[in-house]
Amino acid sequence: MATPFHTTRRVEFGDTDMAGIMHFANFFRFMEVAETDFLTARGLNVTWDSAGERYGFPRVSAACDFAKPVRFGDVLTITVTVEKVGRKSVSYRHDFARGGDPVAVGRITAVFVRKTPAGMESAEIPDDVRAKLEGTA
Amino acid sequence: MATPFHTTRRVEFGDTDMAGIMHFANFFRFMEVAETDFLTARGLNVTWDSAGERYGFPRVSAACDFAKPVRFGDVLTITVTVEKVGRKSVSYRHDFARGGDPVAVGRITAVFVRKTPAGMESAEIPDDVRAKLEGTA
Amino acid sequence: MATPFHTTRRVEFGDTDMAGIMHFANFFRFMEVAETDFLTARGLNVTWDSAGERYGFPRVSAACDFAKPVRFGDVLTITVTVEKVGRKSVSYRHDFARGGDPVAVGRITAVFVRKTPAGMESAEIPDDVRAKLEGTA
Amino acid sequence: MATPFHTTRRVEFGDTDMAGIMHFANFFRFMEVAETDFLTARGLNVTWDSAGERYGFPRVSAACDFAKPVRFGDVLTITVTVEKVGRKSVSYRHDFARGGDPVAVGRITAVFVRKTPAGMESAEIPDDVRAKLEGTA
Repeated sequence: MATPFHTTRRVEFGDTDMAGIMHFANFFRFMEVAETDFLTARGLNVTWDSAGERYGFPRVSAACDFAKPVRFGDVLTITVTVEKVGRKSVSYRHDFARGGDPVAVGRITAVFVRKTPAGMESAEIPDDVRAKLEGTA
Repeated sequence: MATPFHTTRRVEFGDTDMAGIMHFANFFRFMEVAETDFLTARGLNVTWDSAGERYGFPRVSAACDFAKPVRFGDVLTITVTVEKVGRKSVSYRHDFARGGDPVAVGRITAVFVRKTPAGMESAEIPDDVRAKLEGTA
Repeated sequence: MATPFHTTRRVEFGDTDMAGIMHFANFFRFMEVAETDFLTARGLNVTWDSAGERYGFPRVSAACDFAKPVRFGDVLTITVTVEKVGRKSVSYRHDFARGGDPVAVGRITAVFVRKTPAGMESAEIPDDVRAKLEGTA
Repeated sequence: MATPFHTTRRVEFGDTDMAGIMHFANFFRFMEVAETDFLTARGLNVTWDSAGERYGFPRVSAACDFAKPVRFGDVLTITVTVEKVGRKSVSYRHDFARGGDPVAVGRITAVFVRKTPAGMESAEIPDDVRAKLEGTA
């Protein structure tokens, strides 16, 4: 499937907790940043307008396995791989590494939605968006 | 002016940083929670709809002096005092204490705004809202 | 196994994102708060000292399925169930509900560790800690 | 005094709130990142060990005036100016701009501390640290 995408982010002082390591919830924030970078690199976005309608990719599930603690100042490389593009959803794998050493693996599934005045409704991923996600555009 | 208002909030593990104390930015989040509690107690809200329009109180300035570090599990009492209700803005003082011992003093100024399709515009605080903020309603 | 444990937490303004709903990473912070409440109710803690040594329960994995968006002001009930107490780890399930309506299900696995000068090492959960986690103490 | 220092940071989706703009508390997190970048550029750090002792710069006050809202995807330039190096403290000014347009001005005062087994005690800023802060090293 799609070529892996790499981005980096530094662990900030405010990302740590009293255990002296990055707080576990921040891995999910880092995944979101990586997803934003990935979508931008593919000509997409987390949310956008098209033909008078608003679209987006809210998450329906997120998970992370933490192998090693990371610390203030560590620069993490996050490799985003599209594991699956379904009819209405996309699943990403995020591999976190520090200097080539794996530290965590996360996964996020996002659904494609159209924002309506009443709320949000899931929608089929259009072919052009699918091609960009799959890296075949 | 208005009677002080008290609320409490516990410092969570995720509120701390690697120095073993609450991260300084979280005092501002605690102030926001206290402000929400205060507004609710006065029959107001951070944002609301009225007669087809949307109103709110975005902050234009925030400040905090940190006297003593606070730690995971500490229960802080936050006393909210309305220092000034101007024509279009309101200023709060937040006194943080732990078991009666002062630990920080914060201040927030919020402006009254009307949300328009183009964005937000500041507006005069209506008399009924002013009376609630001042505790004279 | 153990009796479920319930706690509640309100969604604050600062917990939301530009989609108008609670940011997905904050479900993990809410799980941590619920875990703290649970451990406290069972006479345990997230980290503690005993006989000159420091113990704790860092997370090794966390996951959440989001069924419905939650919004500013929503009061969520979080039910913590101990799904498994292993030799060196404990797994929790967190059921999030709003007014009886399920909105998300999360899971966290934490390992029992002893903090040493060199770092942390996993350790067998002592019988008294195990009994408290299982609710049989 | 010292030459201004510039760094940039993008507003992430998770930095926003339901008002569609960056949550005000995150300006303080951005200031911290800028401070870290500044200290690193000057050969210092937020916390470090020297001759068997641990030193750091915890904040004793922080303030920010918000002139214009910033949004997801905005790249902010943060200019850090050392306003004053006192005997035991340092004060920074942070000017936030988006494409040359000022959006916020923040200030942070940090004290120089030595970490002792009993806690932290303020200490005189050594000459070499002072020279680096002042940009005269």
